[in-house]
Amino acid sequence: MPDVGIIMGSDSDLPVMKQAAEVLERFGINFEMSIISAHRTPHRAQSYAMSAKTRGVKVIIAGAGGAAHLPGVLASFTTAPVIGVPIMTPTLNGVDSLYSIVQMPGGIPVATVGIDNALNAGLLAAQIIALNDAGVHDKLLSYKGEMEKNVEKKSARLETLGYKDY
Amino acid sequence: MPDVGIIMGSDSDLPVMKQAAEVLERFGINFEMSIISAHRTPHRAQSYAMSAKTRGVKVIIAGAGGAAHLPGVLASFTTAPVIGVPIMTPTLNGVDSLYSIVQMPGGIPVATVGIDNALNAGLLAAQIIALNDAGVHDKLLSYKGEMEKNVEKKSARLETLGYKDY
Amino acid sequence: MPDVGIIMGSDSDLPVMKQAAEVLERFGINFEMSIISAHRTPHRAQSYAMSAKTRGVKVIIAGAGGAAHLPGVLASFTTAPVIGVPIMTPTLNGVDSLYSIVQMPGGIPVATVGIDNALNAGLLAAQIIALNDAGVHDKLLSYKGEMEKNVEKKSARLETLGYKDY
Amino acid sequence: MPDVGIIMGSDSDLPVMKQAAEVLERFGINFEMSIISAHRTPHRAQSYAMSAKTRGVKVIIAGAGGAAHLPGVLASFTTAPVIGVPIMTPTLNGVDSLYSIVQMPGGIPVATVGIDNALNAGLLAAQIIALNDAGVHDKLLSYKGEMEKNVEKKSARLETLGYKDY
Amino acid sequence: MPDVGIIMGSDSDLPVMKQAAEVLERFGINFEMSIISAHRTPHRAQSYAMSAKTRGVKVIIAGAGGAAHLPGVLASFTTAPVIGVPIMTPTLNGVDSLYSIVQMPGGIPVATVGIDNALNAGLLAAQIIALNDAGVHDKLLSYKGEMEKNVEKKSARLETLGYKDY
Amino acid sequence: MPDVGIIMGSDSDLPVMKQAAEVLERFGINFEMSIISAHRTPHRAQSYAMSAKTRGVKVIIAGAGGAAHLPGVLASFTTAPVIGVPIMTPTLNGVDSLYSIVQMPGGIPVATVGIDNALNAGLLAAQIIALNDAGVHDKLLSYKGEMEKNVEKKSARLETLGYKDY
Amino acid sequence: MPDVGIIMGSDSDLPVMKQAAEVLERFGINFEMSIISAHRTPHRAQSYAMSAKTRGVKVIIAGAGGAAHLPGVLASFTTAPVIGVPIMTPTLNGVDSLYSIVQMPGGIPVATVGIDNALNAGLLAAQIIALNDAGVHDKLLSYKGEMEKNVEKKSARLETLGYKDY
Amino acid sequence: MPDVGIIMGSDSDLPVMKQAAEVLERFGINFEMSIISAHRTPHRAQSYAMSAKTRGVKVIIAGAGGAAHLPGVLASFTTAPVIGVPIMTPTLNGVDSLYSIVQMPGGIPVATVGIDNALNAGLLAAQIIALNDAGVHDKLLSYKGEMEKNVEKKSARLETLGYKDY
Repeated sequence: MPDVGIIMGSDSDLPVMKQAAEVLERFGINFEMSIISAHRTPHRAQSYAMSAKTRGVKVIIAGAGGAAHLPGVLASFTTAPVIGVPIMTPTLNGVDSLYSIVQMPGGIPVATVGIDNALNAGLLAAQIIALNDAGVHDKLLSYKGEMEKNVEKKSARLETLGYKDY
Repeated sequence: MPDVGIIMGSDSDLPVMKQAAEVLERFGINFEMSIISAHRTPHRAQSYAMSAKTRGVKVIIAGAGGAAHLPGVLASFTTAPVIGVPIMTPTLNGVDSLYSIVQMPGGIPVATVGIDNALNAGLLAAQIIALNDAGVHDKLLSYKGEMEKNVEKKSARLETLGYKDY
Repeated sequence: MPDVGIIMGSDSDLPVMKQAAEVLERFGINFEMSIISAHRTPHRAQSYAMSAKTRGVKVIIAGAGGAAHLPGVLASFTTAPVIGVPIMTPTLNGVDSLYSIVQMPGGIPVATVGIDNALNAGLLAAQIIALNDAGVHDKLLSYKGEMEKNVEKKSARLETLGYKDY
Repeated sequence: MPDVGIIMGSDSDLPVMKQAAEVLERFGINFEMSIISAHRTPHRAQSYAMSAKTRGVKVIIAGAGGAAHLPGVLASFTTAPVIGVPIMTPTLNGVDSLYSIVQMPGGIPVATVGIDNALNAGLLAAQIIALNDAGVHDKLLSYKGEMEKNVEKKSARLETLGYKDY
Repeated sequence: MPDVGIIMGSDSDLPVMKQAAEVLERFGINFEMSIISAHRTPHRAQSYAMSAKTRGVKVIIAGAGGAAHLPGVLASFTTAPVIGVPIMTPTLNGVDSLYSIVQMPGGIPVATVGIDNALNAGLLAAQIIALNDAGVHDKLLSYKGEMEKNVEKKSARLETLGYKDY
Repeated sequence: MPDVGIIMGSDSDLPVMKQAAEVLERFGINFEMSIISAHRTPHRAQSYAMSAKTRGVKVIIAGAGGAAHLPGVLASFTTAPVIGVPIMTPTLNGVDSLYSIVQMPGGIPVATVGIDNALNAGLLAAQIIALNDAGVHDKLLSYKGEMEKNVEKKSARLETLGYKDY
Repeated sequence: MPDVGIIMGSDSDLPVMKQAAEVLERFGINFEMSIISAHRTPHRAQSYAMSAKTRGVKVIIAGAGGAAHLPGVLASFTTAPVIGVPIMTPTLNGVDSLYSIVQMPGGIPVATVGIDNALNAGLLAAQIIALNDAGVHDKLLSYKGEMEKNVEKKSARLETLGYKDY
Repeated sequence: MPDVGIIMGSDSDLPVMKQAAEVLERFGINFEMSIISAHRTPHRAQSYAMSAKTRGVKVIIAGAGGAAHLPGVLASFTTAPVIGVPIMTPTLNGVDSLYSIVQMPGGIPVATVGIDNALNAGLLAAQIIALNDAGVHDKLLSYKGEMEKNVEKKSARLETLGYKDY
């Protein structure tokens, strides 16, 4: 049974949205992945969101671009936390996506991450699941530690080699 | 039977949206007016849009602010033309509303007018109805003529009085 | 006799504007296509708009970029609905085009679609014509159904293959 | 023991941030509330975030304006989900706050809500807690139902009275 | 015979546009002032611009707000220099007006001044007229000298009184 | 003796600024061309502007990017009309250049054209010079006529060939 | 002999710029204060900047709004660090001022602080002076400590009183 | 002992940040260079900033992109002047970085330079150090002189060759 649902408005969002899948896999969190358009498949958006909790889905990650209604539409039909990923657009650079996702009216929150930042969406889902899963929590701590070490390694290398030879 | 449905996401949008009602009244076009939130009453948004055409509604005017999904959500459930009115917001001045309404994905158009410009939404609905209603068409011509005369009167007054006494 | 006029400010807008032509063709709607610049051929802009209705044109689609006055200028000379397509610009990404088209003064509406989204302009014209043309209406319903099926097919493929093999 | 920590960068943020407190109270969720500046009290920001989980805090809500570093700084020291509330600013309307909060680098997510929308931050925290608290989940369902009824009541009133007497 | 035509799209622009009139009066330059809307009185816009040069008008100053087409429309019908004044708007602060005026296509220039800065439009017109009018040129030199002295007086006062008593 | 001075802040602006030179050449207007940086050669900026009128320069065209002070700095030292060309920037797309040039304080106008639109700067200079040069005026009229014919030719070709074969 | 020069483009900037004076006074740092316009008094801007170092001025603080050239113009004539304060504008909220100050070309830096944030300009000047003045350094440490205590006091009060009685 | 610390949030910032190193080298100013992430290595950010002054660092240059907290976080732990370099981002072009760095709250200044303009950060550091180092001051004067000569050489070349052969 999936703990997380990763939904995207179009398969062109997959190169961004798979970052969420990869990080969930790394943490051993089950997820399902679908393409659901708020506007082209509105009935499916509704049925997906309404059945998510009963199918065990704890957190929904939804990515969309432009007039990016998908995360908000899903959130209107469920009490599960919905994480929104604004997808970059060729015209407005994703500012349209960001505003369409983050500026939800009072009553229907969407937890928004940075433009194209599906990695952080996956991590946020993991943080929520870790609240009741010590195994995931340990992996989050390791992940944080590893990030720290990576930066330190790079810094040591820069300090040793100098900027010209880095 | 109403020809036009005027929908708004919240009753706080009424001072703007009533401009559409006023101009339709002036042109003798029947309309209905409801408050439907894409996020707080998503089922009603769906049933309204799906039944609109069968109830005789030819054009839908929908106003919303912030992550303004209402016009797009209605458009996803109907083939009737949907006119979107981006409502001004205290934080982002309505740019969020504008982007959320106008940047719809290919396949689901929303006919967007200027921020808070529900008057133009009403006129656009009238122009569409006038395509098969000579009476409304005549009233549109008079309206255009009247606007022209009003500007000319003001200009004549300015030219006579001078800018200091205008 | 054409039902729709597709006008663009420059032939560099053709790669965008032809999306409108293609969708109208698909729906069997007659259209004419011209290049008219609001600023370089202002007399022709005026005569085109003033004669459009009498030549049978029901809806005008006009695309322009930068200080994109063409849709508004056409709208000032006709009561036919004018659909404006803001063309992307190399400097301001089409925000200039969008603002120049959507922020029309009260009295002269332009039905604005997303930046470079001439496909939606064509669909909006079809929706307006479908109000009195059951054949076009049926084609709109099929179009919507097809879009839905396409998304569902892609989703099924993603669910079967997984994101790594998609 | 508090389940939620509500932190703000300055007491001038209290009129906004108290919306989060009110909704948590309504749902019977324990919370603590403090003023911690990422820049003026950086040591306290660090010690607060590092000790939060061990003191039982499951979710942190942090509001800040301008170069709004508080949510991100807290997130760098904890694996608890951090919800960021961008506070409106007199100069840049909160776009500065929004960008400073939502555009976090990969690895350190902040769940961002709309500008000044601390109500949604409180609801998001409740949704996260509801994943393991059936009582809170029931209250969320009632809350959603109540919102729906409120909109419907207003709509019925508008439909009965007409827009002139509303 | 007027040397300068001051045109505005609406009488609501008069409080801004009269700054241009005042500075022209101060320099003894003849001007005429009219209200002409590019969209509501398009025929008059055309006839005004086409007859301007033959009536002796050397420079046209045109102010407009929103989708501010007036300066560009006038420029399309004349070879006289057209100075555009973007008028502030309640929604987009005049950025819409600025983009609609300054981003003209190659071939049809509009000399754009700052938002609401009709004073500079008047001065620019005077600078153009001064190229062949030594009297106006002398007045421009005095004006510049006076501005300089005013700043110096204020600075001397600040240096004497100190900032607390200024 | 040059009638127009074309100044740019850096030789990297030359590919844009030469458009002004080309159109002036076409109209037989004498010009000089220099590289003067408001910030790297401030003394030269001052001496250039102060001596321009006495050397016969009637109009100055100045292009600059980023914190684009050059047009305003030149304007502060002369009563000749200064035309500012905002140069596109890799970071802010020229919005920084545009704001730095167009938002001049009351008293010191800069006639601003569109981003990278040095062609229009050259045409504006020609329009100013044409006020007292019938030869240039005739060339402006021909130029306008030619633009018109070019658009009409392209339109005729599109109407004949259809959009697929254009 | 003043260590810091506080310059503003207009006396309307004084309510903002006096924050810099107040904090310098508090730290016992000598300063001078003048009104110098980059555009209205360009000669004085030049002579001020060129003589500043010889008169003992170590740091220049310059505030300006709109096309805010003052800090950059001063920086072009001196090697002293110039701190720029972008002043809020009624139209573009100070984004114009910010871009005009911060986007200086390579070679001529301006140390920019936040919009209307002259307090930080004063503190930055103090930090620079403190590099060679242990007394000022001690005062900076106290200032930082005081800020910290103030936040902690407010937080303690909030924690004691609760948000309803704060 | 280094006089300047050059810190960047990620090694992907090195191509930009090395401009600061190069100009400091040219001026013979000692510097150290490290990679420290405000979010991934928050403890190291703190310890670096707290120990900087005691290790002789006079000025800190910090570059970061997106929610660019690094300069502000360092500034919160030290009284040394911190110069912030907003790094360009693929989505928001560095406007997010700029706002996150420049809009610091009163009390904790960051001296911000233009987007990607690490060269100016290095020069600003040199200007600060030059206040007590005549050698560096002389080099700054030479640098300014050289820039001036370079522009003049290019201008002379343009004036000689003409724009076609440049």
